[in-house]
Amino acid sequence: MPQRPLILVSNDDGYVAEGLRELADTLESIGDVYVVAPERPRSGVSRMITLHKPLRVIPYDRERRRMYCSGTPTDCVYIALNHILPRKPDLVVSGINRGANLGDDVTYSGTVAAAFEAVAHGIPAIAASLVAHERPDFGPAAELTTRVASEVLANGLPPRTLLNINVPNNYNLQRGLRVTRLGRRGYERVVDRRDDPRGYPYYWIGGPELELDDSPGTDCNAIHQGYAALTPVTLDLNNDELAAQLASWRLD
Amino acid sequence: MPQRPLILVSNDDGYVAEGLRELADTLESIGDVYVVAPERPRSGVSRMITLHKPLRVIPYDRERRRMYCSGTPTDCVYIALNHILPRKPDLVVSGINRGANLGDDVTYSGTVAAAFEAVAHGIPAIAASLVAHERPDFGPAAELTTRVASEVLANGLPPRTLLNINVPNNYNLQRGLRVTRLGRRGYERVVDRRDDPRGYPYYWIGGPELELDDSPGTDCNAIHQGYAALTPVTLDLNNDELAAQLASWRLD
Repeated sequence: MPQRPLILVSNDDGYVAEGLRELADTLESIGDVYVVAPERPRSGVSRMITLHKPLRVIPYDRERRRMYCSGTPTDCVYIALNHILPRKPDLVVSGINRGANLGDDVTYSGTVAAAFEAVAHGIPAIAASLVAHERPDFGPAAELTTRVASEVLANGLPPRTLLNINVPNNYNLQRGLRVTRLGRRGYERVVDRRDDPRGYPYYWIGGPELELDDSPGTDCNAIHQGYAALTPVTLDLNNDELAAQLASWRLD
Repeated sequence: MPQRPLILVSNDDGYVAEGLRELADTLESIGDVYVVAPERPRSGVSRMITLHKPLRVIPYDRERRRMYCSGTPTDCVYIALNHILPRKPDLVVSGINRGANLGDDVTYSGTVAAAFEAVAHGIPAIAASLVAHERPDFGPAAELTTRVASEVLANGLPPRTLLNINVPNNYNLQRGLRVTRLGRRGYERVVDRRDDPRGYPYYWIGGPELELDDSPGTDCNAIHQGYAALTPVTLDLNNDELAAQLASWRLD
């Protein structure tokens, strides 16, 4: 009898998040699941890694191999891969995030960062997000992510590449999904200056979302049209075109 | 008389770091410099952005337009671009980091993240690092970075791309620099489990560096051979090759 696939699940909303539970439960239909997730919400933490202080790992459901870790999503995946799992897993799935991870936002995302850490370790990975903040329904997104996970287990992924999935809320799975590119997600770039009760200024950064990038083929566009978006994302950050041009610069 | 270039300087080692001061002082030879840097060291913080709490910004040298911010490198650049600077700057330079930022490490780096935030705002950016932890000599690295900055001001950079510079310690500027690609930087992937005085386990992640990637043309290789490395790094994370293949997957 062939071994069941071993799947690690993490997220950035923290171990109590409903999207994590729904995802882990659904993935158990196709493999043996471990959960190592952050102790508290870590949205927007990107690929932060904790090298200057030690970490704790605490089981919250020992029978079902579910535990939380005091670090970031990247820390969770690192420590799971190098200390907790009994062998190298076949797949790492991060999510389901409450809220979209589209376009440039993937570079800030803790959800996507957890998948990147897996990819940096040579393990196929998926990041999954639900485009909803109110009354989120994680069921269809978990189902769709599990379908994609099955295909990744069957087909593999190229090195240094993850799949980023965004699913609209209350999604009808009959719609299937669209393969997309990362678009540009625009926010109003504002700084909100306020005065504290002692009269000193403090600042809130970030503003409301502007119109979505509606270029055809982008993840933003697919979501705008009511489709789930599946985007291959690479860890290869080289710009070879510019490298070739730099030879003509006077740098010596 | 043409306007002098406006240059924003930040880092991830914090505003008291010697590498930041040396860089800002040297850049003043080619432009008007603002410094907005983190209040405390923020190494390995990647593109973390602070959306759940407010930030403080405090001048520590008002005459020279130097201030620190309670947030991450990304926060510093965001708040500088959108609130502090009198106009859109011509260039953002991050560093000089104490320690290398080579290969995959650029995805964890706060130094590179500050430059990425500028690029996401459509502003040319440079990240600079000194390959030294003991007895660092930032002078030559600041000089070389300023030369590269002059060229960026003269030639511009393509959209969504930054330049990542690593300079060996005690560098002889006569050597010039090499245009490179990001290599793979290998670390021993270990987790060090210890018991606290109460008998409970805690974990340190990360191990010592393994051999540098010596593939010709990589930044690691250039440093290994004693050269400064100049690497174009892109924010475009699309993998179009895989996107084309996904059409054959059974995802519906």
